[in-house]
Amino acid sequence: MLGMGLRVGIYGGSGYAGSELVRLLSGHPEVGGMEVASRGFAGRDITEVYPHLAVEETFVEPGQVDASGLDVAFVAYPHMESAGVVRDLLEAGTGLVVDLSADFRLVDVALYNEWYGEHPVPELLKEAHYGLPEVFGAAEGRLVANPGCYPTAAVLALAPVVKRLKVSSVAINALSGVSGAGAKPSPKTHFVSANENVSPYGLADGSPRHRHTPEIEAVLGRVGEVPEITFVPHLLPISRGELETIYVQLEDPGELPEVEDVLGWYEEDYEGWAFVEARAEAPQISHVANTNRARLSAAVDRRAGKLLLFAAVDNLLKGASGAAVQNMNLALGYPEDAGLEHLK
Amino acid sequence: MLGMGLRVGIYGGSGYAGSELVRLLSGHPEVGGMEVASRGFAGRDITEVYPHLAVEETFVEPGQVDASGLDVAFVAYPHMESAGVVRDLLEAGTGLVVDLSADFRLVDVALYNEWYGEHPVPELLKEAHYGLPEVFGAAEGRLVANPGCYPTAAVLALAPVVKRLKVSSVAINALSGVSGAGAKPSPKTHFVSANENVSPYGLADGSPRHRHTPEIEAVLGRVGEVPEITFVPHLLPISRGELETIYVQLEDPGELPEVEDVLGWYEEDYEGWAFVEARAEAPQISHVANTNRARLSAAVDRRAGKLLLFAAVDNLLKGASGAAVQNMNLALGYPEDAGLEHLK
Amino acid sequence: MLGMGLRVGIYGGSGYAGSELVRLLSGHPEVGGMEVASRGFAGRDITEVYPHLAVEETFVEPGQVDASGLDVAFVAYPHMESAGVVRDLLEAGTGLVVDLSADFRLVDVALYNEWYGEHPVPELLKEAHYGLPEVFGAAEGRLVANPGCYPTAAVLALAPVVKRLKVSSVAINALSGVSGAGAKPSPKTHFVSANENVSPYGLADGSPRHRHTPEIEAVLGRVGEVPEITFVPHLLPISRGELETIYVQLEDPGELPEVEDVLGWYEEDYEGWAFVEARAEAPQISHVANTNRARLSAAVDRRAGKLLLFAAVDNLLKGASGAAVQNMNLALGYPEDAGLEHLK
Amino acid sequence: MLGMGLRVGIYGGSGYAGSELVRLLSGHPEVGGMEVASRGFAGRDITEVYPHLAVEETFVEPGQVDASGLDVAFVAYPHMESAGVVRDLLEAGTGLVVDLSADFRLVDVALYNEWYGEHPVPELLKEAHYGLPEVFGAAEGRLVANPGCYPTAAVLALAPVVKRLKVSSVAINALSGVSGAGAKPSPKTHFVSANENVSPYGLADGSPRHRHTPEIEAVLGRVGEVPEITFVPHLLPISRGELETIYVQLEDPGELPEVEDVLGWYEEDYEGWAFVEARAEAPQISHVANTNRARLSAAVDRRAGKLLLFAAVDNLLKGASGAAVQNMNLALGYPEDAGLEHLK
Repeated sequence: MLGMGLRVGIYGGSGYAGSELVRLLSGHPEVGGMEVASRGFAGRDITEVYPHLAVEETFVEPGQVDASGLDVAFVAYPHMESAGVVRDLLEAGTGLVVDLSADFRLVDVALYNEWYGEHPVPELLKEAHYGLPEVFGAAEGRLVANPGCYPTAAVLALAPVVKRLKVSSVAINALSGVSGAGAKPSPKTHFVSANENVSPYGLADGSPRHRHTPEIEAVLGRVGEVPEITFVPHLLPISRGELETIYVQLEDPGELPEVEDVLGWYEEDYEGWAFVEARAEAPQISHVANTNRARLSAAVDRRAGKLLLFAAVDNLLKGASGAAVQNMNLALGYPEDAGLEHLK
Repeated sequence: MLGMGLRVGIYGGSGYAGSELVRLLSGHPEVGGMEVASRGFAGRDITEVYPHLAVEETFVEPGQVDASGLDVAFVAYPHMESAGVVRDLLEAGTGLVVDLSADFRLVDVALYNEWYGEHPVPELLKEAHYGLPEVFGAAEGRLVANPGCYPTAAVLALAPVVKRLKVSSVAINALSGVSGAGAKPSPKTHFVSANENVSPYGLADGSPRHRHTPEIEAVLGRVGEVPEITFVPHLLPISRGELETIYVQLEDPGELPEVEDVLGWYEEDYEGWAFVEARAEAPQISHVANTNRARLSAAVDRRAGKLLLFAAVDNLLKGASGAAVQNMNLALGYPEDAGLEHLK
Repeated sequence: MLGMGLRVGIYGGSGYAGSELVRLLSGHPEVGGMEVASRGFAGRDITEVYPHLAVEETFVEPGQVDASGLDVAFVAYPHMESAGVVRDLLEAGTGLVVDLSADFRLVDVALYNEWYGEHPVPELLKEAHYGLPEVFGAAEGRLVANPGCYPTAAVLALAPVVKRLKVSSVAINALSGVSGAGAKPSPKTHFVSANENVSPYGLADGSPRHRHTPEIEAVLGRVGEVPEITFVPHLLPISRGELETIYVQLEDPGELPEVEDVLGWYEEDYEGWAFVEARAEAPQISHVANTNRARLSAAVDRRAGKLLLFAAVDNLLKGASGAAVQNMNLALGYPEDAGLEHLK
Repeated sequence: MLGMGLRVGIYGGSGYAGSELVRLLSGHPEVGGMEVASRGFAGRDITEVYPHLAVEETFVEPGQVDASGLDVAFVAYPHMESAGVVRDLLEAGTGLVVDLSADFRLVDVALYNEWYGEHPVPELLKEAHYGLPEVFGAAEGRLVANPGCYPTAAVLALAPVVKRLKVSSVAINALSGVSGAGAKPSPKTHFVSANENVSPYGLADGSPRHRHTPEIEAVLGRVGEVPEITFVPHLLPISRGELETIYVQLEDPGELPEVEDVLGWYEEDYEGWAFVEARAEAPQISHVANTNRARLSAAVDRRAGKLLLFAAVDNLLKGASGAAVQNMNLALGYPEDAGLEHLK
């Protein structure tokens, strides 16, 4: 694919997020050329490796891509590996880098070091824009930290609440399809293990310890005051999609709002954004799968004094690659839904 | 099937609970004869209607069964319909009635009336034994109220905790396979609706309002003090099995126990019972599906001050028909696992 | 949705084919206004009934649509019901009618009467164009008979073969997702029945007797000579997609071609068409699901003297609504992939 | 588990067939002690590795088992690896060896060498009994070759036909759950690859070439005359179960039988055997999953001159471990359903 338009590079093009990027960018009206790097599949036609992708490109070695000529690079490597590649791209002159790893999501280097290990390029942390545009707007710099899939749903549901109410307790029960566990075969992702099953995970030594917990807390902390959050993800026998059911308690139980209030806050805060919508009916994963949507809802348990929030996204689209393209669009001044119109 | 042994009747034999009873009782060593009543399928061979059941019996009209000659009757009718049938059976002289509906689970008639409608036979309420033997022992009378599937998991997980600690908040996030929604075809249970989907349900006018909520609260209230409970069930794309992830807060956060403590309470309280087991590893639905097991676990989120409990059962076995057979065994003095040995 | 562009009507908008049409046409660049008729849901917002469809239209009564003002009407009613509606639309002056039922697929009225019942509007049969454009080109008249899902796959795979070789035996083993059985809830489409299961169907009194059999035979008969075909469909636990494995024997076993020959015939016959592609690797349902593609392949069993053909389509897209839009595009002179670009 | 009764060893206890053997033998009334060897998990409690198995044994190293003291050994190793272990067990004095690999299923060493590689212990081939008891009776020697899963279904369906009719063409369309592909994680068995998908496999260089083909041909050849068979397996998104739809043509089309004839042959040939049953209704996978049953049916396509046979088994039970226990029972003089009563 050559011609006018943006020249984009995808690093880590053979994982799930990477192959979704290939699919989305190959149909993007502003993209003129695409280079897809994969260490494992370099030299092979993409459509041979992924027959569901009807594109003409061939996987190349990361080193073969001329980074200085790229308008945009998407990096879909594991955390700790990504940071160095991002630095190299920025130094080589790539116009915009959208990093889909966790490496630039936490501003506080100590927090990163505690949950991930020592950050390879801490000096870049403060330059990254957290790419949840409906809360933090379009990126102005050259580096976008694409949010985690679970934080995307959690922050969209919780930000309007913590902005307005003093929250004393938050428990997030999260459910994810198996693509959330990555493309690498393992006993856990074997069809026979995951099928007809649900398994809680992210527990270590009897405590919930998933790395999206500090991300959710830190990002929400920029919007309002939040307590430590309990976050328990579960693996579901579906391919894609996430649903979070969030149990919230308030410092002052007398402040428990009406459902309509919460839906109104969502409408107010997300007005004008194409992909986030609140409805009275609780969202289901099938309402958002294969789209770039986030769907929100709320319920109030007045008997038990709790506010319930519901959020659903497709973990590979609004939770990863769809958001990444949306972030690119916004950073470069295109409509946020360019190339994503059919995913609204 | 004729001969020595118990003569049992199954009313409502063509639903999921009923057909599981047929399967279990047809292999039960103490059962000598089985009559299976179904209003919709009377006159047809069971194995023709349900080819996965390799039994020789034919469905009969409920009126064709001689209730006075039954040693045991299992009633698997909808609530409000069941109560009258149960009364008639007891009056006709059936030795033991195990009711799988909700009609005799709540002792408090006002509570029943609030959540279900006016109870048809309130005078029988106080004669029913709540059939969760690991907490309330074997039935002594002639009527067993078989617990709801969700309450089975919830009460097994929570009873040892509320017995020992002052609990201030409980949120139960429950996940169930589609058989929990019954055998009647509906848009919600259509394969294409349920597949690749998860949907929260049990919400009415923006509030959680599932009928198992008062059952859980009332039953736990016999063991300790409990606050109003938030209970949110979700429909999962699996055929059978339930997982509950329970978020507990204590009145005195300083009392937050160690995981080992909780596992120790489970071991202590459920010692000697064949089907309930606690493990350090969180249970998965595949660990209990197609068995009569309940598997429990616990985790502690010391950061956020919460105790987490996990419970998994097969909704059709330990959550319904397996428990019903176990209750029959105990009421009649057989080993609790008679006919259920292969489901341990 | 109003404005410039085509005014289209969808009759039977609440079934699976109908709701896919809503999704596709709401994003079609040439469509300016859309009316969606549904007898069951008239008056309700489409997105309320089908939350996965983010459109603004409301279902209307069929009688409320001004047929004379429609540029195109899509009819997705059951066979026997569709024919009369089609006639009325044509008489009222609708520019183009694409009928997704079986009513105009068989040219021979006697054959229709034998397999479906007495045809309500036999005089229109000869005016219909069989809408498999890759074999029969664009429609020239005002009525398109959209092919059956199974015949689409079968004819695309077989036409190039029967055109070139004398075939003596054809057995089509077809596998379909549950959406192929329609949106109406039934015991067969209940999640618990279909999940973890595969069931052969289309058998009557011990003989294969699916109505797509005469359609396949008659349509192939326009291309070459074909024997009576054995066609056995099976229901699969997936939502969408079809795979046919076709066992072919030749009158002269010595003529058994090479795989490359067959792939070459496909390439030759389907050159220039956007949605049909042959590959050396056998197609899988995941290669075509959620696309308008048909993927073909071939194998040769020289030991046993058989030619094997493989064909996969998404039954709701290339097998129904995607093809319907493609047929509209071609009949009206638009590019065949207008509004379907992201489904290639 | 110690005490009176048989002392059995399981080699390869951590695969799917092995773990099913653990489950079945731990509940077998004649088994007094069980040793389970696993090279990967030696030293770990079985129930820790496989929480769905509630047994007390610990995996041991193969070398730790005293083969001379074993009454029965089950070997569930890959082909080519199994043969040597079988020889060693027989030489060490193990009473009976049931081999679940392909190593002793083909009597003709040249055929084995062609399809698998050079046989490591060809001299044992003629001592093995092919363990499909409903066709070949109980084993008399010390070595049972447990049949392949696909051949079990195919031979049960075809043997009574080829015994009575001259068959000119056989095409077997086989569908299998993912457990048939083994427990080893791979891209093909990843949940996201297999889910919502069906894939033909067993093709090499454009020809069907699955190793069960010569097994089916050779075994049927002992019963009647058979042509070369076309066998095309497909991977299905279910955990367990197999369905074969078999397309048969006769040398003399005038001999095409009635469905009732075929069902009668099945009844006659399999009378008295507990696990094989023919019915007028076509079998579905859910009719046999989690049982040791084989269910058969037939249809006749008189238009197209073909006989259709249907066969369904659970690939891990009647297609592997259930049959292995049945073979042990028969070889040692126990009822064929000892320990398998609940799987009838």
